[in-house]
Amino acid sequence: MSSLVYRNLTESEAFTRLIATQPYHVTSINADRVEKFDIPAGGELHYNYAAKAVDDRVLMALTELAAEQQCIGKYRAILEGEVMNTGEERMVLHHLTRGQLGGTVKAGSRDIGAFYAEQQKRIADFAGDVRSGKKKGSTGKPFKSVVQIGIGGSDLGPRAMYLALANYAATTGIDPILDAHFISNVDPDDASEVLSHIDPETTLFILVSKSGTTQETLTNRAFVAEHMKKSGISGLNPDAHMIAVTSETSPLAKETDMLDAFFIDDFIGGRYSSTSAVGGVVLSLAFGPEVFSRFLSGAHEADRLSLEEEVGRNAALTDALIGVWERNVLGYPSTAVLPYSQALHRFPAHLQQLDMESNGKSVNRAGKPIDYPTGPLVFGEPGTNGQHSFYQLLHQGTDIIPLQFVGFLDSQRADDVKYEGSYSQVKLNANLAAQIVAFARGQKDQDPNKSFAGNRPSSLIYGPRLSPESLGALLSHFENKVIFQGLIWNINSFDQEGVQLGKVLTKTILGGTDDPLLRAYGALLGVNG
Amino acid sequence: MSSLVYRNLTESEAFTRLIATQPYHVTSINADRVEKFDIPAGGELHYNYAAKAVDDRVLMALTELAAEQQCIGKYRAILEGEVMNTGEERMVLHHLTRGQLGGTVKAGSRDIGAFYAEQQKRIADFAGDVRSGKKKGSTGKPFKSVVQIGIGGSDLGPRAMYLALANYAATTGIDPILDAHFISNVDPDDASEVLSHIDPETTLFILVSKSGTTQETLTNRAFVAEHMKKSGISGLNPDAHMIAVTSETSPLAKETDMLDAFFIDDFIGGRYSSTSAVGGVVLSLAFGPEVFSRFLSGAHEADRLSLEEEVGRNAALTDALIGVWERNVLGYPSTAVLPYSQALHRFPAHLQQLDMESNGKSVNRAGKPIDYPTGPLVFGEPGTNGQHSFYQLLHQGTDIIPLQFVGFLDSQRADDVKYEGSYSQVKLNANLAAQIVAFARGQKDQDPNKSFAGNRPSSLIYGPRLSPESLGALLSHFENKVIFQGLIWNINSFDQEGVQLGKVLTKTILGGTDDPLLRAYGALLGVNG
Repeated sequence: MSSLVYRNLTESEAFTRLIATQPYHVTSINADRVEKFDIPAGGELHYNYAAKAVDDRVLMALTELAAEQQCIGKYRAILEGEVMNTGEERMVLHHLTRGQLGGTVKAGSRDIGAFYAEQQKRIADFAGDVRSGKKKGSTGKPFKSVVQIGIGGSDLGPRAMYLALANYAATTGIDPILDAHFISNVDPDDASEVLSHIDPETTLFILVSKSGTTQETLTNRAFVAEHMKKSGISGLNPDAHMIAVTSETSPLAKETDMLDAFFIDDFIGGRYSSTSAVGGVVLSLAFGPEVFSRFLSGAHEADRLSLEEEVGRNAALTDALIGVWERNVLGYPSTAVLPYSQALHRFPAHLQQLDMESNGKSVNRAGKPIDYPTGPLVFGEPGTNGQHSFYQLLHQGTDIIPLQFVGFLDSQRADDVKYEGSYSQVKLNANLAAQIVAFARGQKDQDPNKSFAGNRPSSLIYGPRLSPESLGALLSHFENKVIFQGLIWNINSFDQEGVQLGKVLTKTILGGTDDPLLRAYGALLGVNG
Repeated sequence: MSSLVYRNLTESEAFTRLIATQPYHVTSINADRVEKFDIPAGGELHYNYAAKAVDDRVLMALTELAAEQQCIGKYRAILEGEVMNTGEERMVLHHLTRGQLGGTVKAGSRDIGAFYAEQQKRIADFAGDVRSGKKKGSTGKPFKSVVQIGIGGSDLGPRAMYLALANYAATTGIDPILDAHFISNVDPDDASEVLSHIDPETTLFILVSKSGTTQETLTNRAFVAEHMKKSGISGLNPDAHMIAVTSETSPLAKETDMLDAFFIDDFIGGRYSSTSAVGGVVLSLAFGPEVFSRFLSGAHEADRLSLEEEVGRNAALTDALIGVWERNVLGYPSTAVLPYSQALHRFPAHLQQLDMESNGKSVNRAGKPIDYPTGPLVFGEPGTNGQHSFYQLLHQGTDIIPLQFVGFLDSQRADDVKYEGSYSQVKLNANLAAQIVAFARGQKDQDPNKSFAGNRPSSLIYGPRLSPESLGALLSHFENKVIFQGLIWNINSFDQEGVQLGKVLTKTILGGTDDPLLRAYGALLGVNG
């Protein structure tokens, strides 16, 4: 590990050569490329990049860049427990929640892999007891719903994963399915509305905050507790309906009145925490520990594939390199994620955090300012809905936005209707295939208003069906892609100093302030007390 | 009207002067600006642009641009029924659904304003009959739910508006509230899941397609009908549970078995149709015609304010001009919409269509290629959730992304809890005020990783509470902003030729094709039959 060298992207010789490399013009795409540029990505998924602006020469230059920036060596260093979160001086160990790929990683005398496995075992036991009715609410009724109270990484990832698997679970005989709900926003309408739909006697609340001090989350906990008290139900005890997911050193961990607590630590960042207790508790409660375990195994498989040295055999690394090519050479500042799967409708919102919070940085890992673009803007909505919305700009707008499609051969619910000769799932995927080709090839027309320039690059991640395994692999693919890009850019993808200033100024306002500008805005919004 | 002159942005002398104008550096912001740069926007809303990169000199240059591009004259021409959708040779009349601001507009002998008013009256009567139980389902039970089947503009706008008012209605004594659901995606899991939650005997389906030929919508109609037939409920007749919103000339309008039909016409584009029958039926059924009427009156007020000649008194025009300044002079390719209101959580998705489909164009209104950037990428999520997600990149990323905040003094449900000295609503708004100031001023720190460059421009639309009137005004504000930008860019904001190629290729695939590339992608996705 001591042989690892960290250099800025623009100090890399391979990058200098990359800049001089001619991009592939995607309008020339042919069927051979579709077969050639296709890599397994774990969980029965494949990553296909036939419609990206790369050819063998570009890929060779990208391979040299990956080698010079030591992507695999540094990824291995992460797995081995090197302190890769340089800003906060922490190890980065979320991969360990899915299994071990390097040596034993210790913090002091603690084996961290064993610690995560122990928490997972405790979660599985707890979820089993809740789902069997052995653990009950304070008035003696079995739990039927869970509500996760958390924000950011404690909300977006777990919520997206829950939504991605709800229909799968509903049609795969998993029983019972506990309804899950999520409260995140400090807007009181969020908590109030969720609480208006649930029965507090049969609801278990999961309070998720690593630090145990997250303003929004503690506020919403108080909101929930107050509601339960006001319900007037005899014997209803809020704390007996509440479990915590937090770090062992947090104030929440010291509370003994709660039903239970499960632990994470500082080596798992919020946006990388879906496979830890942060996602594990709600998914295990909703669908059973077995489904959660399958989800982990898919992620683990993709983690292992990310160790492949050869670029064309490592989907996450290839995806990352193409993203750098698009961002730093072709100059595209944003990227769209377009799942042709309604179950993934909140997956882009999770990726938005994962990517933009990890790599939206202007300093390198040593804290020195850098002078090249880093993380892009990430956004997306499910196809075919997006087709009837913002695809106009994607096809004919003045800027090129690279696209990342996701699709599955089969639907989750296996409930379909044949109409005008084809099933809905076939129509869905015909649209997806058509869009890739339309974006790539374009189409000339004498009327410029009906012309499509084409050369809009896209990739496709596809698989047989959105299952727990493929979802895990999909999640891991993007996590590792983001990490590889951070390594290439020589930034720290694991801290988030950019969120601090707003927190400080919020406290300044709430504490009463003389700052004329804060007071001027405060006056418009009724917060000056 | 004949005095209107259409010229490209880069042919405008005012634009040449604008390029030479120095931007205001937002780090210099002070409290006086907060008071000075504040304009009424209708529905008790205000548009505040104190934290934008403009000062009196920039605003003067923008005023000259608005004058040279004849923004108000052209907006008036739209209201008067000039053929402003040049590509499709149509008038643009969605404003007429909210009231008349110009002379009577006729198509042939038909008074279009009277036609829209008549449809609205028919909707109100029908909704009254459904809500009172006078109109019932085919098995004799009253309707309790409505399901809108539509995609794009028939889905995103109405859905966002419904979600924006559901909590308002729930706490303002509106009775009954009919649950509304939406089916849009051709993914069979979308329809299957919605149908698994509703009782077909008490559900009314609204089939929305202007042309009556939208593939996804007709497929989902068949899906719903098939499900109802398969339910085995005696006497259940799908068509008797279905109403259409379509044009009078569409195939749907000729069906006589449906419960009823309400009409729109070619002068209302999908993304501008929330105030027509497309949004009117579902909102009137869910919350009553009175709420819909109040929504229209808010939109009408904002439409009227958009006629103001003076830039600093016309919120939509000012917003539009600042957007052009940011896009074409400062070079920012995207913009974020950040509502500090959970009720507006799907409002950014609607704006995404409204803006990107309207102005994502590379030809001018005469169909000639242009050489300057047009519509930006638009995205957003509710605050405070976004703060814990992608704000890291907004604060410290390498690109500047202009921001558009929305906030309200009071929550909708008026259900709140005081925790650590403040109510949730106050915390929410303190966060909003703090973010505006943090983005604008930034903060120097010796550690570059903890430094904030500031100069991240933002505007704020705010009002007392999200009501039907303020929602209408908010919607109209953005519609008119988009239209003004299209006029400044000299493009046609009302057609969408960019969606055609994908539709054609989808049909090619579904019809069986020899095209090797389509077949290669089709093979990956199982659609080659």
